[in-house]
Amino acid sequence: MARTRLYQNGTLVLENFPADDISEHLTDPSSVLWLDLYRPGQDEFAMVGDEFGIHDLALEDAAHQGQRPKLDRYRTHEFLSAHAVSIAPDSADLSTSEISVFLTRQAMITIRHDDGFPIDDVVARWDQSPDLAGHGVGFLLHGLLDHVVDGHYAAAQQLDDRIEELENLLFAEGRHQIRTVHRRLYALRKSLVRLRRVVLPMREVVNSLMRPGLVNDSLVPYYQDVYDHVLRAIEWTESVRDMVASAMETNLSVQSNRMNLIMKKVTSWAAIIAVPTAITGFYGQNLPYPGFADQTGFIASTTAIVVVSALLYLVFKRKDWL
Amino acid sequence: MARTRLYQNGTLVLENFPADDISEHLTDPSSVLWLDLYRPGQDEFAMVGDEFGIHDLALEDAAHQGQRPKLDRYRTHEFLSAHAVSIAPDSADLSTSEISVFLTRQAMITIRHDDGFPIDDVVARWDQSPDLAGHGVGFLLHGLLDHVVDGHYAAAQQLDDRIEELENLLFAEGRHQIRTVHRRLYALRKSLVRLRRVVLPMREVVNSLMRPGLVNDSLVPYYQDVYDHVLRAIEWTESVRDMVASAMETNLSVQSNRMNLIMKKVTSWAAIIAVPTAITGFYGQNLPYPGFADQTGFIASTTAIVVVSALLYLVFKRKDWL
Amino acid sequence: MARTRLYQNGTLVLENFPADDISEHLTDPSSVLWLDLYRPGQDEFAMVGDEFGIHDLALEDAAHQGQRPKLDRYRTHEFLSAHAVSIAPDSADLSTSEISVFLTRQAMITIRHDDGFPIDDVVARWDQSPDLAGHGVGFLLHGLLDHVVDGHYAAAQQLDDRIEELENLLFAEGRHQIRTVHRRLYALRKSLVRLRRVVLPMREVVNSLMRPGLVNDSLVPYYQDVYDHVLRAIEWTESVRDMVASAMETNLSVQSNRMNLIMKKVTSWAAIIAVPTAITGFYGQNLPYPGFADQTGFIASTTAIVVVSALLYLVFKRKDWL
Amino acid sequence: MARTRLYQNGTLVLENFPADDISEHLTDPSSVLWLDLYRPGQDEFAMVGDEFGIHDLALEDAAHQGQRPKLDRYRTHEFLSAHAVSIAPDSADLSTSEISVFLTRQAMITIRHDDGFPIDDVVARWDQSPDLAGHGVGFLLHGLLDHVVDGHYAAAQQLDDRIEELENLLFAEGRHQIRTVHRRLYALRKSLVRLRRVVLPMREVVNSLMRPGLVNDSLVPYYQDVYDHVLRAIEWTESVRDMVASAMETNLSVQSNRMNLIMKKVTSWAAIIAVPTAITGFYGQNLPYPGFADQTGFIASTTAIVVVSALLYLVFKRKDWL
Amino acid sequence: MARTRLYQNGTLVLENFPADDISEHLTDPSSVLWLDLYRPGQDEFAMVGDEFGIHDLALEDAAHQGQRPKLDRYRTHEFLSAHAVSIAPDSADLSTSEISVFLTRQAMITIRHDDGFPIDDVVARWDQSPDLAGHGVGFLLHGLLDHVVDGHYAAAQQLDDRIEELENLLFAEGRHQIRTVHRRLYALRKSLVRLRRVVLPMREVVNSLMRPGLVNDSLVPYYQDVYDHVLRAIEWTESVRDMVASAMETNLSVQSNRMNLIMKKVTSWAAIIAVPTAITGFYGQNLPYPGFADQTGFIASTTAIVVVSALLYLVFKRKDWL
Repeated sequence: MARTRLYQNGTLVLENFPADDISEHLTDPSSVLWLDLYRPGQDEFAMVGDEFGIHDLALEDAAHQGQRPKLDRYRTHEFLSAHAVSIAPDSADLSTSEISVFLTRQAMITIRHDDGFPIDDVVARWDQSPDLAGHGVGFLLHGLLDHVVDGHYAAAQQLDDRIEELENLLFAEGRHQIRTVHRRLYALRKSLVRLRRVVLPMREVVNSLMRPGLVNDSLVPYYQDVYDHVLRAIEWTESVRDMVASAMETNLSVQSNRMNLIMKKVTSWAAIIAVPTAITGFYGQNLPYPGFADQTGFIASTTAIVVVSALLYLVFKRKDWL
Repeated sequence: MARTRLYQNGTLVLENFPADDISEHLTDPSSVLWLDLYRPGQDEFAMVGDEFGIHDLALEDAAHQGQRPKLDRYRTHEFLSAHAVSIAPDSADLSTSEISVFLTRQAMITIRHDDGFPIDDVVARWDQSPDLAGHGVGFLLHGLLDHVVDGHYAAAQQLDDRIEELENLLFAEGRHQIRTVHRRLYALRKSLVRLRRVVLPMREVVNSLMRPGLVNDSLVPYYQDVYDHVLRAIEWTESVRDMVASAMETNLSVQSNRMNLIMKKVTSWAAIIAVPTAITGFYGQNLPYPGFADQTGFIASTTAIVVVSALLYLVFKRKDWL
Repeated sequence: MARTRLYQNGTLVLENFPADDISEHLTDPSSVLWLDLYRPGQDEFAMVGDEFGIHDLALEDAAHQGQRPKLDRYRTHEFLSAHAVSIAPDSADLSTSEISVFLTRQAMITIRHDDGFPIDDVVARWDQSPDLAGHGVGFLLHGLLDHVVDGHYAAAQQLDDRIEELENLLFAEGRHQIRTVHRRLYALRKSLVRLRRVVLPMREVVNSLMRPGLVNDSLVPYYQDVYDHVLRAIEWTESVRDMVASAMETNLSVQSNRMNLIMKKVTSWAAIIAVPTAITGFYGQNLPYPGFADQTGFIASTTAIVVVSALLYLVFKRKDWL
Repeated sequence: MARTRLYQNGTLVLENFPADDISEHLTDPSSVLWLDLYRPGQDEFAMVGDEFGIHDLALEDAAHQGQRPKLDRYRTHEFLSAHAVSIAPDSADLSTSEISVFLTRQAMITIRHDDGFPIDDVVARWDQSPDLAGHGVGFLLHGLLDHVVDGHYAAAQQLDDRIEELENLLFAEGRHQIRTVHRRLYALRKSLVRLRRVVLPMREVVNSLMRPGLVNDSLVPYYQDVYDHVLRAIEWTESVRDMVASAMETNLSVQSNRMNLIMKKVTSWAAIIAVPTAITGFYGQNLPYPGFADQTGFIASTTAIVVVSALLYLVFKRKDWL
Repeated sequence: MARTRLYQNGTLVLENFPADDISEHLTDPSSVLWLDLYRPGQDEFAMVGDEFGIHDLALEDAAHQGQRPKLDRYRTHEFLSAHAVSIAPDSADLSTSEISVFLTRQAMITIRHDDGFPIDDVVARWDQSPDLAGHGVGFLLHGLLDHVVDGHYAAAQQLDDRIEELENLLFAEGRHQIRTVHRRLYALRKSLVRLRRVVLPMREVVNSLMRPGLVNDSLVPYYQDVYDHVLRAIEWTESVRDMVASAMETNLSVQSNRMNLIMKKVTSWAAIIAVPTAITGFYGQNLPYPGFADQTGFIASTTAIVVVSALLYLVFKRKDWL
């Protein structure tokens, strides 16, 4: 099902009119039109191709998922691909949703293949800044990009928050906590790899939009602002990457130290426990040692066990091995 | 054995005609010709050199395997080298197959040294887009490059899938699973190193093709499309590289933690087992300890063993060492 | 509450006058004005927008925290965002404080959202170089940037000092010292990540200020000087990063070695302690071994224990395992 | 001792004539001359300086070993420094041999300080392509560079082969094999560091030769070919670097896993061996336990030992610890 | 105390004349003057400022230590900052000594704050190439830079030597040797970080000197030579960095392997020692086992101990665990 909007001289004049009326509306040069297609079929692509003169390659790119964020310039129009991202509330899992956009002089056509793209939020953003609506397609695109890029930044910040949450676990000793750290850090890295894949190319996309053409002078600051946000998202993503690496290395070092501590403890207790074994072994010999089968022997044995064990315990305690 | 094709004004007019007829066909300026040589001998190279005026260096490069992907410009023709790649179905092993291409105004000559290059798929691709056939050599080359680059991207994605498959093994404890992780990760890195070697230089190859000359205006979007796919393949390759590094580090950290858990378990059981040894050692002494050779002694001994062992067991269980 | 300053022909003529008088003062083209707003409300932003003709986007950026360091050029003014940093005295924690600046031909307006920014020090710096005051807004901005950038360099140096302090702990063996090393190194990395986020973009900010416009010829050396300091801060930050990585790796290696030493010690003592156990076990057998229930047996047993244990001790000592 | 060659109009007319005849030959503008000096003394350097008008700095650079690969342009001549490399047959050790070259309009003078440089192979290469001999000094230099750069590529490939050989050892368990892996990997890294030092700057050297001057149009494809080979050598070197890093990390991970396996085995056997100790300890007590000094006791004891030990063995086997 | 030199038309005419005579000498346009100030006071800075027209900022930079290597251009003069380095003979400790230089058309003024800078060597270098003395300030600066940059290269090489010395220790097992490796590698990294800080910016410094101005055509090859040496020092520094990283990783891997070997040894001996304990335990039971209190029992026990222990020893030896 298609959503539509018609702007004239900066005013929204019609909404959700049938796609069949498009040709008619386009005849008025002051008309600016938005058409949104959700999982379009062959027919709808054909209609878009005919009506707006979209190049076959652009149509093909829009029909297949898995494009990288890019801006392709054709003679009469542009094709843009971008990805909205979101982080699942309690995990570090990143989900992405692709949007394909055709930009002509009078129209912006958006193609979506799943319902993860927050198209309603984009519409709301348009309605929040009606004063810019007179700038035509550049205005529509700005609202879309601004929302997408803000989402990238938000995702980077959420991943940063996830690391902050992990920080305490990093020095914790519980088995489940350590496993959580491993799985979380791995998931974080994975999400970061995906995030970078959709965020990094946006720099070039927004930058090449700011060159002549589509964006008029009054809009330039707005696109500059989007560009700044792209840079901010990229820088933040790189920071998070750095922090994840740091957490991984710290984790390894903490574990290595923990191992040392365990070894020391083991060794200490093993030594302490070896004492009675050695002493009772001595007094268990079938030999006429001093005190054999005698009360004095028992006292000597017991005293030796208690004293030597206690001594060892103190020694290890002082050396901080226990 | 040579394969041939003759196009005139965008139509395929002849196929698999003898290589001897080439001179004749080339006299018609509207003719565009494809010649494919499989493991050509000295004679065939000499023929190609004479017929198409190919530079000796280009012939030499085509005769020897092991060229890097590149585009060399000569005065009347270009020499291009590229590599098709494929991933073996059940492993992460990458195999590459080199192709050498001479491009003149009227002809594209392809040289293959092994049968790994999917030349039939390239031919099929040409036949799928007959509407572009009128663009001459640029059309032929586009079909070839498009197929090669799509193969690069597919390989990067398959390696990515291989990592996804490894992910569960990463946290598994079985000896064979861990060995599998090691060998697979190493194989993945190796394949990635090879993949990068053939993918990265393609950026420059395709980019320098898009500058003036061979590719006319109508084809530019198609080459731009190939270029986008090159970038996509490169980005994906770098992502996979990042993920492999991440998996390797996680693996190390998981192993280090596993070591700690084992050590704790060992220590705990060693301590528990030390208890009866110490106690029976005590009651084995040839000394008149309380209960010597008496039922009370036996009860004391057995009680001590059971109670202390059980106590230790509970302590370790609570500290999560067992 | 707002702070104000009015300069005329390089002389400070008025301070802390009410914001309402601004319009009046601006009519004199020789006036240069500083307005500082601390946590401004909607009204004050509206006033600034009207009085100085600031673009809505710039106002919005100033109203929200979390901008990256940047310089946005509008038609009649610039918007600059920068961050002052400081390191807490006894830790490696970095705190940042954001400042937003509007620059018009006649005025510099600074917006602060927290009281961490050392605005009084900036004022003091202006008063220290009254000879430059004639260069207008460029002079005011220089004092601000110079102070901010010097703070960046100071922070990098303080973090460097923190590493120097850690160096001895790096080779220490105490449990608390090792934990300190881990936590400190992690905190250092975290502070560095944050520091880079505010320092690195300053290069571009100061560089784009030095291009034509705002800064007149006499001020160029002063901005060049700030630029040098930015580079110095960046280089130092990267050095510290390098040292932290180095410390982390050394730490891991030291721990791994410590583990080896502990293992050797454990092994040695375990072997020495095993000797009496084995020997007394032998003499504890209910078998007619030589010396059974005899003085000679006791002498043999005791001698064997002492001699073999001492021998082992010496062997391990010589092999440097103890 | 000096070697000489004289070309006229693309033909080798004289070889190994005395250095004293050089002045005479140079008077004919169609003469092209090669002079090779092996460990030249002060006199020979002075002669070269006078005869060919070589700048003092270039002479000084040629007199001292340890130059980086570079091309220095003087007003009437160029100075070039390059390094031939070779890998010792059974090891990963790289040896380098420096050559200094002066290039004038009519002559190429080569200076060698050790006999590691394969100058005879360069001469052979010249004789293999007599058709290019008419291009003068550019021809001579091409033969030299082509040989040097091919050597770089061969070295990179040999190091790659060395890693392939190490691959099986990587997963081997023998003590000597592991040591071999460590020493080899370290040696490989060292050779790579050296190889990069002489290979990477060649890109700039060959690139700056291809700009106007020395190389005429017909030679350009030949220098382009050398340049391609430089890139190939560089890419391969970087690949090898990547593989060595990968092998090192895999090695660490394999060792860490091996440690875990050993620990598990140790623990398992320790537990199994603890069983008879505990049981015989029990039956060794001087207490009236059931079966004391009785056949039933002996049967109970022996049965317990066998059954519990066997049970433990099976448990560990099933858990894959043994 | 100040050192001075006066050159006229390429000849040294006066040395160590009083600073007060400077004004007088400068009136002759053919005069070129060197003034060296060691720990100058306020007065001397003021004198330099007045006499040579040095900008306040340059004076301030010269008065404070801690400048990064840089070249600042003022309208009538340049300010240059550089650092001489040296490596302590028996350690890897790097010490740096800063020099500040003002360059006017007729004079070079050097400012030193410590006596680590080898100014006498610079003077000696000037006297070694009197033929260049006619090139004025460019000649003086060349001597200084040449010496500084050669020092950088020498330091990089000395650090490289330090690593070579460490190489054998890398595979050594002694406790002190391992500690030495750790401390040395850490010290090396630290020195490298410092070295890079003073070496890397020199590329830009020397490069911007070679652009028009100060350096005339005859000196260009000499500055090009210095530039080559800067590149050489940088490349060598990066190589050393690479080698240190390599040594650190190898060290970690060697230690990890050593740990495995120790564990195997420990395990083997523990198993061998467990044999007599188990057997004598059996024969120590108060039970009528075969051979109880009988010569046959003693023979059986002793035989079992010897045979089983010897067997285990051989098994471990064959498995290369001992």
